[in-house]
Amino acid sequence: MAEAANEGRRRGRGGGGASARRAERGSASLEQFPYIQRKIKEYEILDDEALEIIERNADIVLEEVGVEFRDDAEALTMWKDAGADVQGERIHFPKGLCRELMKTAPGQFTQQARNPARSVEIGGKNTVFAPVYGPPFVRTLDGERRYATMEDFRDFVKLAYMAPAMHHSGGTVCEPGDVPVNKRHLDMVHAHMTLSDKPYMGSVTAPERAQDTVEMSKILFGEDYVDNNCVVTSLININSPLVMDDTMLGALKVYARAGQACIISPFIVGGAMSPVTVAGTLTQVLAEAQAAIAFSQLCRPGAPVVMGTFATSISMQSGAPAFGTPEPAQVLYGAAQFARKFGLPFRSGGSLTGSKLPDAQAAYESANTLTPTLLGGVNFALHAAGWLEGGLVSSYEKFVMDCDQLAAQQKMAAGVAIDENGQAMDAIREVGLGEGSHYLGAAHTQANFKTAFYRSTIADNNSFEQWEVEGEKSAPQRANETARKWIADYVAPEMDPGTREALDAYVATKKESMPDAFT
Amino acid sequence: MAEAANEGRRRGRGGGGASARRAERGSASLEQFPYIQRKIKEYEILDDEALEIIERNADIVLEEVGVEFRDDAEALTMWKDAGADVQGERIHFPKGLCRELMKTAPGQFTQQARNPARSVEIGGKNTVFAPVYGPPFVRTLDGERRYATMEDFRDFVKLAYMAPAMHHSGGTVCEPGDVPVNKRHLDMVHAHMTLSDKPYMGSVTAPERAQDTVEMSKILFGEDYVDNNCVVTSLININSPLVMDDTMLGALKVYARAGQACIISPFIVGGAMSPVTVAGTLTQVLAEAQAAIAFSQLCRPGAPVVMGTFATSISMQSGAPAFGTPEPAQVLYGAAQFARKFGLPFRSGGSLTGSKLPDAQAAYESANTLTPTLLGGVNFALHAAGWLEGGLVSSYEKFVMDCDQLAAQQKMAAGVAIDENGQAMDAIREVGLGEGSHYLGAAHTQANFKTAFYRSTIADNNSFEQWEVEGEKSAPQRANETARKWIADYVAPEMDPGTREALDAYVATKKESMPDAFT
Repeated sequence: MAEAANEGRRRGRGGGGASARRAERGSASLEQFPYIQRKIKEYEILDDEALEIIERNADIVLEEVGVEFRDDAEALTMWKDAGADVQGERIHFPKGLCRELMKTAPGQFTQQARNPARSVEIGGKNTVFAPVYGPPFVRTLDGERRYATMEDFRDFVKLAYMAPAMHHSGGTVCEPGDVPVNKRHLDMVHAHMTLSDKPYMGSVTAPERAQDTVEMSKILFGEDYVDNNCVVTSLININSPLVMDDTMLGALKVYARAGQACIISPFIVGGAMSPVTVAGTLTQVLAEAQAAIAFSQLCRPGAPVVMGTFATSISMQSGAPAFGTPEPAQVLYGAAQFARKFGLPFRSGGSLTGSKLPDAQAAYESANTLTPTLLGGVNFALHAAGWLEGGLVSSYEKFVMDCDQLAAQQKMAAGVAIDENGQAMDAIREVGLGEGSHYLGAAHTQANFKTAFYRSTIADNNSFEQWEVEGEKSAPQRANETARKWIADYVAPEMDPGTREALDAYVATKKESMPDAFT
Repeated sequence: MAEAANEGRRRGRGGGGASARRAERGSASLEQFPYIQRKIKEYEILDDEALEIIERNADIVLEEVGVEFRDDAEALTMWKDAGADVQGERIHFPKGLCRELMKTAPGQFTQQARNPARSVEIGGKNTVFAPVYGPPFVRTLDGERRYATMEDFRDFVKLAYMAPAMHHSGGTVCEPGDVPVNKRHLDMVHAHMTLSDKPYMGSVTAPERAQDTVEMSKILFGEDYVDNNCVVTSLININSPLVMDDTMLGALKVYARAGQACIISPFIVGGAMSPVTVAGTLTQVLAEAQAAIAFSQLCRPGAPVVMGTFATSISMQSGAPAFGTPEPAQVLYGAAQFARKFGLPFRSGGSLTGSKLPDAQAAYESANTLTPTLLGGVNFALHAAGWLEGGLVSSYEKFVMDCDQLAAQQKMAAGVAIDENGQAMDAIREVGLGEGSHYLGAAHTQANFKTAFYRSTIADNNSFEQWEVEGEKSAPQRANETARKWIADYVAPEMDPGTREALDAYVATKKESMPDAFT
């Protein structure tokens, strides 16, 4: 199996020829952007004094309060051996222990895609966008809100494959409720591997499902290749405050030991799972992330790991989380500063909203999260497109609208060109001033107009009269049409038949080996 | 007249008592925020090298290409006397001349409001939000798009008065087409003065209309007071590329000589009125702004002035301007850096969009402009609420939605509190970790929950089920209800009857003195 897969991988990855041309044709109308290499500065919200205070406080929390590693005897032993003070399931960390262990984690790593042109660099000045993750519901192209199916899942993988500024295929783009809970990870990973050639995320809902992801990755990339390269990222949530549960520890151990990337993310509704202040939340995030990242390095020194944070504010009236508000943006900016200080890749942000509809609330809130994502220097942005209703819903229309915003970020991130062409002094001298002077016809304008300005694929900037004639469409109506077109135009990237067969067989065998479970 | 006005001003401004109490009651349900005093850093897009190159290029443009001061012989003489090289109507500026003249302009100034609690600081670390300016159309609360009327104008002044995070009453909140063109400025200024106690903008469409604004301001504030204080801001647009026309020069001279503030703003559709690149546009903006700001100081050294820029990108297909795109944000960040370098207050940004509807496009684009407005360090943000359709339409619904976003900026601008309460270490120690640990009941949370997180007045973060029961409303539907409520709840701030009488008389006399003109 591995032999055939290796062959397939070599042909799929290295090969030009018919395979490459067909893959190219599939998305010929949508030129794909590489992951973002930011040429602009990061925005910083914390000064040196604040950084120092919060870091010191996090050290105090790690030592005094500690972090619970729950229902995992092996983890406790590993911590004891590493020199931590283990009291029952609670680990107290001597000052400096976590930071010392974290040193083996790489500051930047490549997640390989089966199409090498789609591989992404995670860390440094790079930003990678990945789709919405986790919603049990979808809002369909007919406007219905219902439980998600495997068919929806495949549609979202296709949309992510088509979207030029979506760099990653993601993970649970929606939760396919029509597939047994103990088997759906097989179909999900299979869909990412076969319907897309962008990098993907693995299952984390049980250690054996994480292991299935690794095994299927070995079929796709070859066994040795997977041991020596990162081909999977995985989302390891911390149970804030200050608890790692056995499910997440199990997945973390599988991936870290396989040399695959863990995105360690405290998932925090501020005021409920962390203190109600930004500095207090950052303190807790820092303690949790350091403990979990250090643990990943105990599993395998050098295993790629991403420091993450997902924070929302909370309505103190209803208890509902709120998105796109100032405080989560401040947490993002602050946590990003710490990730850079620690020399670690950073995950946060996305296009988050609490809105039930792809309306103005959804867009304000998403933009209020996405701009900090870019300016804060996020390296891996999950939920970059499609998120609605506080993460309960994957929306087709919002996915496409968000992707348009992602493409705009690519342009923003390129910064201001200051070369001779950018300075445009010839144009200023040519056009001069006064009656009838304008730049539209200038040689410099003509030479640059195709790439000068970001061109939205969703925004309507025509005259009112033309917009009226064209049916007075709103942004989500235009996005609806685009989503339908992308799905209709989709052509699967070619895959070596032997690899495909082996993947199909792995999934079939695994599925047959156990009864369906729906909880 | 002036005597009575002075008396009125003193009573209106200094006086407590019934007047103050009634004014307070009028907006009792909506606590007003003061102008923003930013505690956060500015974001910078240009490095030192880029700053130096662009500034040097602007000097070359000022000297080689020059700026035209059109149909204004006095201006030409003033420039000749100041040492410029005047060739016909074209002024060539020896290197350093403009910068030298600009030195008398204040780095920060107070625009006084008739209610001193509403006076605003323009410059430095302060940000002042003002409403949409200029649209000939409105989108009504019944969804109709039609020409604006004086009744709409009054409604928008009322909305701006009610909105907690709107610091300024603005100017032409919409263009009241039902009032003769040569008289409407009187009604507009009268509306700002009587319906609001926030600071306002003056007419710029003709020198005599600017003069009317100054005269009415003298009635409101007293003659000496106006000569010694800034009580009006005015929007002086430059006809890019590189032309000042007689209308704008006329208004500029009136306001500057009266010691009132001019906001000097190149209005640029990039690629049409300036080079197609960000650096080229910044070069032109810098040349234009320096020439006009220097001229304001020739009119009256020390006259308050704001360096402005309004830049959009352009669809190279249709020629339509595009908003909320990356390039205008880059122009904003860059121009703000130059304003700080020159030690001048800066105007830009707002909540701009090309959308015809208050939909997702409108919100993405507005947020993409508003975040740079705050992070870039804009001091005066015109069009902060209500702008739709590229500035052709003032929208009631969008006004209210934007105001919600403005209030969020107040919170963002406050930065991260790092005092003992902000650090929240007591809370972390109190809550600890593990089963059942949460922060909702913690003493620290209880003590802070009212102010901890921004609370949107428009966003719906309730459960899907509750939202469904409440009628499945979109954000603009909720904003519609709020706009109706604000207008219904509006109570005019009290005004001294003598002042009111004098203002009414001034307007009536002026209107009677000339026939109606509709073009």
